[in-house]
Amino acid sequence: MPRYKLLIEYDGRPFSGWQRQANAPSVQQALEDAFLRFCGEPVVVNGAGRTDAGVHARGQVAHVTLTKGRRPFQISEAMNAHLRPHPVAILQAEEVADTFEARFDAIKRHYVYRIINRRAPLTLERGQAWQVKKRLDAQAMHEAAQRLVGRHDFSTFRDSQCQANSPLRTLDHMSVTRIGDEIRIEVSALSFLHRQVRSMVGSLEHVGSGKWSAQQLADALAAKDRARCGMVAPPDGLCLTQVDYPTS
Amino acid sequence: MPRYKLLIEYDGRPFSGWQRQANAPSVQQALEDAFLRFCGEPVVVNGAGRTDAGVHARGQVAHVTLTKGRRPFQISEAMNAHLRPHPVAILQAEEVADTFEARFDAIKRHYVYRIINRRAPLTLERGQAWQVKKRLDAQAMHEAAQRLVGRHDFSTFRDSQCQANSPLRTLDHMSVTRIGDEIRIEVSALSFLHRQVRSMVGSLEHVGSGKWSAQQLADALAAKDRARCGMVAPPDGLCLTQVDYPTS
Repeated sequence: MPRYKLLIEYDGRPFSGWQRQANAPSVQQALEDAFLRFCGEPVVVNGAGRTDAGVHARGQVAHVTLTKGRRPFQISEAMNAHLRPHPVAILQAEEVADTFEARFDAIKRHYVYRIINRRAPLTLERGQAWQVKKRLDAQAMHEAAQRLVGRHDFSTFRDSQCQANSPLRTLDHMSVTRIGDEIRIEVSALSFLHRQVRSMVGSLEHVGSGKWSAQQLADALAAKDRARCGMVAPPDGLCLTQVDYPTS
Repeated sequence: MPRYKLLIEYDGRPFSGWQRQANAPSVQQALEDAFLRFCGEPVVVNGAGRTDAGVHARGQVAHVTLTKGRRPFQISEAMNAHLRPHPVAILQAEEVADTFEARFDAIKRHYVYRIINRRAPLTLERGQAWQVKKRLDAQAMHEAAQRLVGRHDFSTFRDSQCQANSPLRTLDHMSVTRIGDEIRIEVSALSFLHRQVRSMVGSLEHVGSGKWSAQQLADALAAKDRARCGMVAPPDGLCLTQVDYPTS
């Protein structure tokens, strides 16, 4: 049966997260409801990453299997109509091999975390960034972040509810850049533990504010102890920006 | 009596515009209500520009006169607390000469208009950009926009309700730049007529889509006839980014 790869954007605010749940609105449910209206049959939408409540996406990827072949353009157009008024949009659809798996075939996931570093409350960025009042040293954060890059046991930066078999992950890239009062943190890895990015960002905030040295961040990582995590940054600032697949 | 200059940011969506009105929420009203709670006395907030309903600001400027002197930092902190939950924030406050007038002393106003040029509906940018589905030629828009720069009678691009005495204005700068699927239009002038920016942007959209040539835009300007305006772009994409004053 024909399989399609979908590139999806959403505002995470009204949702309890990506994953379908019994009594809470989810992005997956919004998509599956729209597919039901569009195709007249139940369709399972398989996402590449399970974003948490309030976390956004500009480049989530999912696959669906339909019983009837359709032109990709027709899928994105019809789905975007059926998705209203949810803040969820199909940016692109393409037909793929019926063996394609959005989650398991992914070779890299990219997230961006935005901090607005100022005294004044957020207005236009409300819900889309983390407001930190205390002045942060982005250069110190960037340097400390390099201690997290590489293959490590990330138990310190892993939610207690995380269901992954292993706390070992390879963080390929982490950069911290300031542009005006915005601090932009970019991370890339094959995969992340539950709340890993927000746990790392919350701990880096401690470095930026001067509460922790880079060595203290490295010590927290080495401790492999959830209790040593600095804090978990709020979901608002987090966005899944891209998922990579082998070019084949 | 002490006078203060305020730098103000707001999300224009919940408001009927900057200006106080009898039966509709306005940014000015939100600020004046907050000042009343903060100072215990009526305070008039005089803005540099009267933004329309749904138009945003990252750099609106206003002045207020208080009966009692206060530290600028105290004003911004207290006001931001009293402004909750409105999406309005005081980014900065400073004491100025008691002759300072936010509106009349301004020497240049800067606006940015954002178009998201794609088929998919907006999610994260909803209410903060204009979605245009048809592919626009930003370079053609930029070149045509140069025909609007300079001193002209802008009657074509002026709302019928505009109360300005003269339709003559000097447009100092207008640029159109594409970054991915976002088209960013920047304009600067001493002052603008009512809905001038949105009228110019809506007409430039005609150039970008190929409906109008640059000459047709120039002809529309030369006609000095409101009926020749292409269309008025929606408020969503418009943001007052900066107001300049003499450095004295």
